Amino acid sequence: MKNRVERVFSDLFPINRSLTGRGVDKTFDYLLNNFPLHGEIKSVPSGTKVFDWIVPDEWNVDDGYILNGAGEKIVDFKESNLHVMSYSAPVDKIVDSDELRKHIHTLPRYPERIPYRTSYYNKNWGFCCSHNLLESEQFFPPFKVFIDSSFNSNGNLSWLECVKKGLTEDEILISTYCCHPSLANDNLSGVILASFLFEYLSKLDTKFTYRLVVLPETIGAISFLSQANTNNIVGGMVLSCVAGPDKLSIKEGFDANHFMNESAHLALKSSVGREYLTYPFVPDGSDERQYSTPGFRIVTPSIHKSKYYEFDEYHTSADDLNFVKSEALLEVLEVHKTWINLIESYCYPKRINAFCEFQLGKRDLYPKIGGTLNQQAHEENERGGHNRLFKFEDTVTINGAHLEAFHWLMHLADGTISNFEISKKSKLDISVVNEAIAAMYQKDLLELK
Amino acid sequence: MKNRVERVFSDLFPINRSLTGRGVDKTFDYLLNNFPLHGEIKSVPSGTKVFDWIVPDEWNVDDGYILNGAGEKIVDFKESNLHVMSYSAPVDKIVDSDELRKHIHTLPRYPERIPYRTSYYNKNWGFCCSHNLLESEQFFPPFKVFIDSSFNSNGNLSWLECVKKGLTEDEILISTYCCHPSLANDNLSGVILASFLFEYLSKLDTKFTYRLVVLPETIGAISFLSQANTNNIVGGMVLSCVAGPDKLSIKEGFDANHFMNESAHLALKSSVGREYLTYPFVPDGSDERQYSTPGFRIVTPSIHKSKYYEFDEYHTSADDLNFVKSEALLEVLEVHKTWINLIESYCYPKRINAFCEFQLGKRDLYPKIGGTLNQQAHEENERGGHNRLFKFEDTVTINGAHLEAFHWLMHLADGTISNFEISKKSKLDISVVNEAIAAMYQKDLLELK
Amino acid sequence: MKNRVERVFSDLFPINRSLTGRGVDKTFDYLLNNFPLHGEIKSVPSGTKVFDWIVPDEWNVDDGYILNGAGEKIVDFKESNLHVMSYSAPVDKIVDSDELRKHIHTLPRYPERIPYRTSYYNKNWGFCCSHNLLESEQFFPPFKVFIDSSFNSNGNLSWLECVKKGLTEDEILISTYCCHPSLANDNLSGVILASFLFEYLSKLDTKFTYRLVVLPETIGAISFLSQANTNNIVGGMVLSCVAGPDKLSIKEGFDANHFMNESAHLALKSSVGREYLTYPFVPDGSDERQYSTPGFRIVTPSIHKSKYYEFDEYHTSADDLNFVKSEALLEVLEVHKTWINLIESYCYPKRINAFCEFQLGKRDLYPKIGGTLNQQAHEENERGGHNRLFKFEDTVTINGAHLEAFHWLMHLADGTISNFEISKKSKLDISVVNEAIAAMYQKDLLELK
Repeated sequence: MKNRVERVFSDLFPINRSLTGRGVDKTFDYLLNNFPLHGEIKSVPSGTKVFDWIVPDEWNVDDGYILNGAGEKIVDFKESNLHVMSYSAPVDKIVDSDELRKHIHTLPRYPERIPYRTSYYNKNWGFCCSHNLLESEQFFPPFKVFIDSSFNSNGNLSWLECVKKGLTEDEILISTYCCHPSLANDNLSGVILASFLFEYLSKLDTKFTYRLVVLPETIGAISFLSQANTNNIVGGMVLSCVAGPDKLSIKEGFDANHFMNESAHLALKSSVGREYLTYPFVPDGSDERQYSTPGFRIVTPSIHKSKYYEFDEYHTSADDLNFVKSEALLEVLEVHKTWINLIESYCYPKRINAFCEFQLGKRDLYPKIGGTLNQQAHEENERGGHNRLFKFEDTVTINGAHLEAFHWLMHLADGTISNFEISKKSKLDISVVNEAIAAMYQKDLLELK
Repeated sequence: MKNRVERVFSDLFPINRSLTGRGVDKTFDYLLNNFPLHGEIKSVPSGTKVFDWIVPDEWNVDDGYILNGAGEKIVDFKESNLHVMSYSAPVDKIVDSDELRKHIHTLPRYPERIPYRTSYYNKNWGFCCSHNLLESEQFFPPFKVFIDSSFNSNGNLSWLECVKKGLTEDEILISTYCCHPSLANDNLSGVILASFLFEYLSKLDTKFTYRLVVLPETIGAISFLSQANTNNIVGGMVLSCVAGPDKLSIKEGFDANHFMNESAHLALKSSVGREYLTYPFVPDGSDERQYSTPGFRIVTPSIHKSKYYEFDEYHTSADDLNFVKSEALLEVLEVHKTWINLIESYCYPKRINAFCEFQLGKRDLYPKIGGTLNQQAHEENERGGHNRLFKFEDTVTINGAHLEAFHWLMHLADGTISNFEISKKSKLDISVVNEAIAAMYQKDLLELK
Repeated sequence: MKNRVERVFSDLFPINRSLTGRGVDKTFDYLLNNFPLHGEIKSVPSGTKVFDWIVPDEWNVDDGYILNGAGEKIVDFKESNLHVMSYSAPVDKIVDSDELRKHIHTLPRYPERIPYRTSYYNKNWGFCCSHNLLESEQFFPPFKVFIDSSFNSNGNLSWLECVKKGLTEDEILISTYCCHPSLANDNLSGVILASFLFEYLSKLDTKFTYRLVVLPETIGAISFLSQANTNNIVGGMVLSCVAGPDKLSIKEGFDANHFMNESAHLALKSSVGREYLTYPFVPDGSDERQYSTPGFRIVTPSIHKSKYYEFDEYHTSADDLNFVKSEALLEVLEVHKTWINLIESYCYPKRINAFCEFQLGKRDLYPKIGGTLNQQAHEENERGGHNRLFKFEDTVTINGAHLEAFHWLMHLADGTISNFEISKKSKLDISVVNEAIAAMYQKDLLELK
């Protein structure tokens, strides 16, 4: 698995992606050929109005370089696709230092790194390079600048869309973006996580229908939303920056109490306890900016390892294959699997009959000798133990925590309180509550809404 | 009073009570003969379906013992009715040590105590004895085990029900259980407190109607609920464990903001300030487990001295007449009387005319010389005094706190805010608020809902 | 300005005001002649029933003194109009010490001061004087007591009412009282602040209509309310005690979350940060006692410098022209101007189109080169700077804080969340939020409700 993750990283990293163009198409082909995604590529033509936006022309770039006064190639797109600013206009001329400096982007603070820059909606040409180069002896005029790029107004903006059908039409949206060139944590890691997560989902029977979209950030999400039926979407997750060296973290969706958030927190807790960071919702970041707008109000948290803005290598050539670790991505994958299982468990249990407690004993859900439970519990607590096990039948082992959960369920399960809320009110682990719900459901004591 | 409490404890303690049977009947007869309860004994036949439960056969026991290999009576029901497990099946046979040990219950941690055990819904025979006996030289086979018990499928499950009519049909439920054999704090103390409390109520004119039920725990409450009209019940109190040596405490009902809880807290505060413990609601414990289910949602806190689960003597022979104190029970009785007076005061005051302040001066509710109040209050505060008395007429002495309460009432009394909430918002004692409400009501400035 | 404030203080201070009478009329004439108030004097006849109250007879006093046993004038109304209790009945007789002491008010704690006392609704005669006088050798009988006062049952109770029309009929009520004689902070300062505030308002184009009432406390407010159309009043401010030496403070209106309160807090913060005191609402104090009653529920906070009850000079002759400072009043005036501008900005922004983000770039509201913002912000934060300036067009300079505000507005502006709430949720200053709203409104991206 670890090897597979590493191979996918190496295969996809060199491809030059942007909002549109051949790099994106190649990426989609690779994913469809290497994962059981059963997806389809959708697109809108350049020039289409999508809400407040116009889909830009399709952009491709084949070459780009700067020659110095001695004719030496001091910047070369073929060495790093970050060297040409994304959506740069074509150029082919001789310029002096002053003019070139207006079109060149560097990071004085990190002089050895190439920054990542874009100019999607303002036609301009530009290069990105290390600041060291600007300061070096190699940097002397006259410069020849050459970018072989093209804009195609008959082109398309494309995205990959995959649906895994569930028992209901309620949909969970998994969204990730694919528009960055050779940057590993932001955003290649999100694309790879999404693929492995859908591979996992393809083997599950689920209640929810899951829709994966791999799209260029912002304009891609807007294009997708402009033609999607979003009425069935109950929430989702935006995948981004999931393979860095930092602590696990969550950026919450805009409604902190929504079950998308609660389940994401519970998944993180079950993985690392309290050892993760929480970033409250702010309307910046990735495509939650679109999903959270008033017309949609779709809650989409994100679970990260090294969240965008929070690591120095962000949007520079240092966010490369050395920065990401396959173990990190696999850890985040496990958290997302737990999250899937938690949202699949989300329900509003309702007692079949709302009056008084059920007689648990006749259903083998209660210890046979009365007057003992709390005495025993008391003694075991003093011994530091939690092994209050009562074996009731061959296939089910019910312990004291389940018994507590039964009591809470008999009290709370009126169809208006979710299993997550019951877990909170009872201070019992969601897994215990879910097991107790399962046991009571099997005994026809609850219906689940 | 103290002597009376002690006598009732000694009279009732020795009786062998269980879910059903002659001990329960004897207890009810004693209460009806010794307290002005005007109650009636209600019952349902064995085998009746009550919600999810079946009323068990009536059980009686006349004798029970174990003879050791030498024919010595090493366990004898006549010495302690805890020795025979409640609802034990009859038995009469010779057994070896291994078999006897499967049917004998002890407390290794408290080797001198006899535990209390039941087997209501799983037919089995059993003894309870001190762990010391098992370890003693007297304990050697072959054993003769004998229990003279009987199950009557034509029997009944009974409870005592008493109604004290009030001005309205809104009912307060006072519930206590009577199914434990010779155990003093849990639960004889609750039965005795209930009787004295209803003796007190019998002399009062009340707004609420009060219904007392003395019933076997769980199945008795379920049987009562199965035939009761619960629509009028606005809340109540479960009486249990009220005569132990520990601090006063409250186990809250499930809705912490309900006036049943608020009034119980206020009653405790007026008795001991902050010197009491609060146990938040959990759906274990006593018959609040039934009353709190979705079909009923009746809020019933409990006020304790030495709450069940919280004292080591719980459900053992050490919960005897030495463990309980009549002074403790009388202290809890006083708290319950205060609670009754508080819930009787519960109201939503509404101004007769909602516009501007009333002219308090013309109704002798305001000092005659203006410009002085706060000056005076200021000076007295610095002197540490609160004796801001203004005498307005011969029969009413209104002080500065009342005046504050008048102002809060003129502001808040719109019929949607209870006197308890007004007390909280104004930070004035509920007694001051109630006196101010009375004064304004007498002057036709308020109506009470 | 400072000189003007001082002149108005000196002109108005000596006038003997009360609930009714010539002093009140003189005060109104002065205000109408010296400020562009465009007000009118309204009145109700003595004896009129206003809600629970009866308008008292019109009271005037021309002279009042006490002569001692030697015929020396030891108390003289002409020296201080506090010497005669407000609404004192006329008197002209010889009395001994015992009787005089029943009718004389002093402050033993502040022996050199004259207290302020009233007896509006209980006919009585009375003098106020320094406690030192009572202890002096001059104080010996027989005393001649003389008060030349009169009650006119054909008189009037008057108040001054001024309206500044706004674009809408939604009204803001500015209320201050004028019934105290020569007392400077309580309440002459409020009357003067109100006049300067309406002078300021007269030059503004406003959304709200502003109604100023200068009226005798309590009975004046009740009379005004009895004949007012209060349906359009959305809130207001009570002006009182605004020129003392203590810290700025606010007494909140009864609904702490109302935008009247929020805007008042914001105005104070923008003036002095956290350096002001907050007094939570209590139903005492001034005419908020009437406005807050159930029939009206008008939220009216007050902003003070040296709030009533909180300074020792309150309701004594020490609250004189030396106690107040024109600088203090001008500081409070500035806070009220800020408050006016804040409530004028109060709105519920709603996006014209609710789907996805707007394309800010094509409207010159977004930086032209992408991938830079947070990198730059990150670096600047480390340098401690907040100078993230992006110049977009000649007339508008939009900075990073505005950009954050645009994002919050695109997320939250669904017409149900006020600009104040958006400021709180985004933790952005209200001025930044308001500027961003203005920019988006100018670009036809928002409508304002």
